[in-house]
Amino acid sequence: MPANTNAYFTEESSVEVVTSRNGAAENERLAEVMNVIIRKLHEAVKEIEPTQEEWFKAIMFLTQTGHMCDEWRQEFILLSDVLGVSMLVDAINNRKPSGASESTVLGPFHVDGAPERELGANICLDQKGEPMLVRGRILDLDGAPIANAKIDVWQANDEGFYDVQQKGIQPDFNLRGVFRTNEKGEYWFRGVKPKYYPIPDDGPVGKLLGALGRHPYRPAHLHYIIEAEGFETLVTHIFDPDDPYIETDAVFGVKDSLMAKFELIEAPDRIAEAGFDTPYFEVVHDFVLSRA
Amino acid sequence: MPANTNAYFTEESSVEVVTSRNGAAENERLAEVMNVIIRKLHEAVKEIEPTQEEWFKAIMFLTQTGHMCDEWRQEFILLSDVLGVSMLVDAINNRKPSGASESTVLGPFHVDGAPERELGANICLDQKGEPMLVRGRILDLDGAPIANAKIDVWQANDEGFYDVQQKGIQPDFNLRGVFRTNEKGEYWFRGVKPKYYPIPDDGPVGKLLGALGRHPYRPAHLHYIIEAEGFETLVTHIFDPDDPYIETDAVFGVKDSLMAKFELIEAPDRIAEAGFDTPYFEVVHDFVLSRA
Repeated sequence: MPANTNAYFTEESSVEVVTSRNGAAENERLAEVMNVIIRKLHEAVKEIEPTQEEWFKAIMFLTQTGHMCDEWRQEFILLSDVLGVSMLVDAINNRKPSGASESTVLGPFHVDGAPERELGANICLDQKGEPMLVRGRILDLDGAPIANAKIDVWQANDEGFYDVQQKGIQPDFNLRGVFRTNEKGEYWFRGVKPKYYPIPDDGPVGKLLGALGRHPYRPAHLHYIIEAEGFETLVTHIFDPDDPYIETDAVFGVKDSLMAKFELIEAPDRIAEAGFDTPYFEVVHDFVLSRA
Repeated sequence: MPANTNAYFTEESSVEVVTSRNGAAENERLAEVMNVIIRKLHEAVKEIEPTQEEWFKAIMFLTQTGHMCDEWRQEFILLSDVLGVSMLVDAINNRKPSGASESTVLGPFHVDGAPERELGANICLDQKGEPMLVRGRILDLDGAPIANAKIDVWQANDEGFYDVQQKGIQPDFNLRGVFRTNEKGEYWFRGVKPKYYPIPDDGPVGKLLGALGRHPYRPAHLHYIIEAEGFETLVTHIFDPDDPYIETDAVFGVKDSLMAKFELIEAPDRIAEAGFDTPYFEVVHDFVLSRA
């Protein structure tokens, strides 16, 4: 008979029994992470008290989520997104000093190597959608301008699709561009007013959202990655506060400080000055970077 | 601007923000289950504080676990097993009155439709391994025998494989049988002394076990499903307490009350009586069922 019969699994001792097995792990961080996961998983099971059928449904949900993943689709990231886990990991990794601009999720549609463009360039390459001028400054925490900051922007078109979702329909690098701030820390570029769009909802995660009475939409937004030497890189969005889904972003990316104003400009002189020939939306938004 | 700007996601409010979206779920149980999962998942993330790289490793682990699953392999059940979740769900669903035999995991190798055999039949159809006689009684909580109880038994061979793992090598239904207790509640059958074996460890779960310094072995055991009219069905194992892995079952299935004694019998008269022609192992084990 075993020396220590208390080592066997019971409902009460389950966490200690399972985590005690990880003592020989070479990678201490892995053991630490797994011990927390085991503890929280057991706490969840003890609170939920699933039937065997419910447990099996959970197994099948995870299996189907795995089977939905391929080179082009990451259903587990989607699951992480809709459960607020992606935003939580983002928040934990991007705690900023007061006054600095806040981060939000990168999202799956960033593309490396977008072309660097002149300030003022129009990133809309197919002349579709409502024209938009975006401008602002990149500042440090004291309000001083940061010159030569690199601004990588990307956005969906007015139908809610990114270029990579419509290969052959949208031109390559449509609605993407890299800009550099001028001596005064200013940036400006032209694009189209973005629109809300659904996250891919034809898989298990979409079904789960439906069963929970949740919609799959993200409110209209522009993506930014802002880099400057000596400063923390900022990955963020700005949002249209008038979007119908602004309060219920399916992936929880919205923050108060990320609201931008999309102002319709109809004055002919300003239309001409912005380089458009019809009324356009103007967005003015500054970003504040914290020092690295 | 939205009416209630407090509704946006923050590190502090993350659980409330995400769970508040589930209020419109038609299936109340689903919302309740998901709310616990979301809360425990966020608690785990806040305690672990994963880097973005660690989060992505977790995403890839789950993806690979999903990709390992097919008609014949269920890697998520394996994950549930090695994290003690399967045993916990079993424990929660099989709380027994004091004195009743305890349950343990069903495992993936049960097969419906095993042949009903005469008491004393040898379920070993290929004459391999060390002979074993198993006998005992099925009793109620008062110690009274239960006649005509149905006993479905199955076991791995002395190399640690079930028939379904060695199709074409072992005969069909090798080491499986269904028996009925006699008027005195007695059962007996012959088989071979079981051996420890590894759970399938060539996938992501096996890799995780390795990284945690854990082995993949289950100690030698016999499986039972015992059914009798008017009683709770019992799904359990009995274990060899002398097995090298008895204290470290990879899936945590061992319980004190499930230990059996595998006694080597060498007396010629008993060998003859048991229907063998060499020394054999005898296992005597009673089971106590609780009323339905």
